[in-house]
Amino acid sequence: MTEPVKLIGAFGSPFVHRAEVALRLKGVAYELITEDLFNKSELLLRHNPVHHRVPVLLHGDKAICESLVILEYIDEAFDGQPLLPTDPGERAEARFWAKFFAEKCLMSVWLALWTEGETQKVLMKDAKEHLAIVETQLKEKRFFGGVAIGLADIAGASVLSHWAGVLQEVAGITIMSDDEYPAIRRWMEDYNADEVVTECLPDRDQLVSHFTSIRGKCVAAAKSMLPNYLATK
Amino acid sequence: MTEPVKLIGAFGSPFVHRAEVALRLKGVAYELITEDLFNKSELLLRHNPVHHRVPVLLHGDKAICESLVILEYIDEAFDGQPLLPTDPGERAEARFWAKFFAEKCLMSVWLALWTEGETQKVLMKDAKEHLAIVETQLKEKRFFGGVAIGLADIAGASVLSHWAGVLQEVAGITIMSDDEYPAIRRWMEDYNADEVVTECLPDRDQLVSHFTSIRGKCVAAAKSMLPNYLATK
Repeated sequence: MTEPVKLIGAFGSPFVHRAEVALRLKGVAYELITEDLFNKSELLLRHNPVHHRVPVLLHGDKAICESLVILEYIDEAFDGQPLLPTDPGERAEARFWAKFFAEKCLMSVWLALWTEGETQKVLMKDAKEHLAIVETQLKEKRFFGGVAIGLADIAGASVLSHWAGVLQEVAGITIMSDDEYPAIRRWMEDYNADEVVTECLPDRDQLVSHFTSIRGKCVAAAKSMLPNYLATK
Repeated sequence: MTEPVKLIGAFGSPFVHRAEVALRLKGVAYELITEDLFNKSELLLRHNPVHHRVPVLLHGDKAICESLVILEYIDEAFDGQPLLPTDPGERAEARFWAKFFAEKCLMSVWLALWTEGETQKVLMKDAKEHLAIVETQLKEKRFFGGVAIGLADIAGASVLSHWAGVLQEVAGITIMSDDEYPAIRRWMEDYNADEVVTECLPDRDQLVSHFTSIRGKCVAAAKSMLPNYLATK
């Protein structure tokens, strides 16, 4: 039974990119529906009535929301290259690192990009500590998933590689200079070199324009997120 | 091969309770190691070097951190009553609701308890909207997991039932009055009536004393978490 697969996405979202990479690794054909997030469609609101956020994966009559939940769904619903290992301990490890990227590492990098002065110094220190933790993990393996791209790689590298480069350029701030974190750098290169990833990476110039145009919104969002990050770190 | 199972926990933590319920539903014998969170042990720091938080599940030579990751591990590593259904779509649904509890519903209820004035009015409205969403979900089924307790029930009911009652008493605020949310009320009663849950619920009076003694810390934590919650809602 081949049910149609559609992905409700939006230009410039690394979370949508996560779902695209997973679908492509599995060899699943899908239709990408591009949403205008400033004028959300009835389709998005109906299929993600709780959060109204992208990505939403539509598979037959099912609608799956939240990028990490979508990755697990794709792994379970489709044959092809597994996104998670079979051993329960290794699966827990992959989920742990996916969560670490989502809640800690990508958060501190994001906040360090859009803050200033003393606050930024604190966040830069945190971001570098988080990156050092990732660096240690990657010293002895090609991907978090071992020899192939897996759940934690998709959760982390989708944002850190292509997006962090663009965001550093737009913000005019260097968090990862060329001579730092050689294992992360090698990991990102391997990730981006995978043709499945290359095929669905958004154009770099368009991404720069996009984030330049919403720079003010990024700064405002970071300012709001800061107290919680500092309180729970 | 029976490897020893130990759970590093702390009195009064609903997140530790999640892991205990899951282990007990599976019939797994475990040793509970109670941590003093104001003077963390070398054992905790060594096994959760990234977050230094409870719960940590020790199984043989493996250490699993983060309560929702632990629940998935327990489901995969041990036989017995499943915590997740077999259908990928239903599994995604359970994960979606577990995440909704963690990031939205329990957060708004928590914040509404420890704030004041106009801010509290906004949060109370949010908490009630989130509870109304949960109420709708529970109208046609006994548990999120169907006829038996599953992942989303453990994620949500562990906090909402026993803890929310205690916290409302300590904070002197009523979020869920007796005549509201009949489906949630019935769900919590069914959850708490399960002997597996009853066996590991912390004593109510001790829980009241515990949260009364850390009330100031709860208020301060809520104040710090508020801007992020408001920014991302």
